[in-house]
Amino acid sequence: MHKARVMVTLKQGLLDIQGEAITKALHSLGFASVQDVRVGKYLEITLEETDPTKAAQRVREMGDRLLANPIIEEFGFDLDPVTQEEGVLS
Amino acid sequence: MHKARVMVTLKQGLLDIQGEAITKALHSLGFASVQDVRVGKYLEITLEETDPTKAAQRVREMGDRLLANPIIEEFGFDLDPVTQEEGVLS
Repeated sequence: MHKARVMVTLKQGLLDIQGEAITKALHSLGFASVQDVRVGKYLEITLEETDPTKAAQRVREMGDRLLANPIIEEFGFDLDPVTQEEGVLS
Repeated sequence: MHKARVMVTLKQGLLDIQGEAITKALHSLGFASVQDVRVGKYLEITLEETDPTKAAQRVREMGDRLLANPIIEEFGFDLDPVTQEEGVLS
């Protein structure tokens, strides 16, 4: 079993309105050192796949077919093996 | 300068409707090995803070005061130093 931690972000250069709003909100709370905030989606995907190479391939396919819009979004992930016990915790 | 990669997820045990919808969509696309999907927010925060301890403290404060709802959400982050050049890329 593997767990993929997937990050989907807007491509660099695209206007991130949500990120700008959070930057302004943080400034108004006194966090003056904040220079930039980019907002994205985060997904934790638990896969019944024992082979890490196959698991990574599956996650890439999911990104291409459902999770990200390749025109405007970047898709990245980390993959870690999980024990059966951790996997069924949720 | 530092960049924090922040992940905000629903606490374990809370119903994640978005995650369930994505699980079903992945199953219907043929990704039968997907067991569970949890959806959260992802933020990349660039901070003009040279001291990593201070930067981490700031990010924790941001989580407490704006970025996460401690009643229902978990807040986690990684912190990496960035060079001036990387920082102004966006």
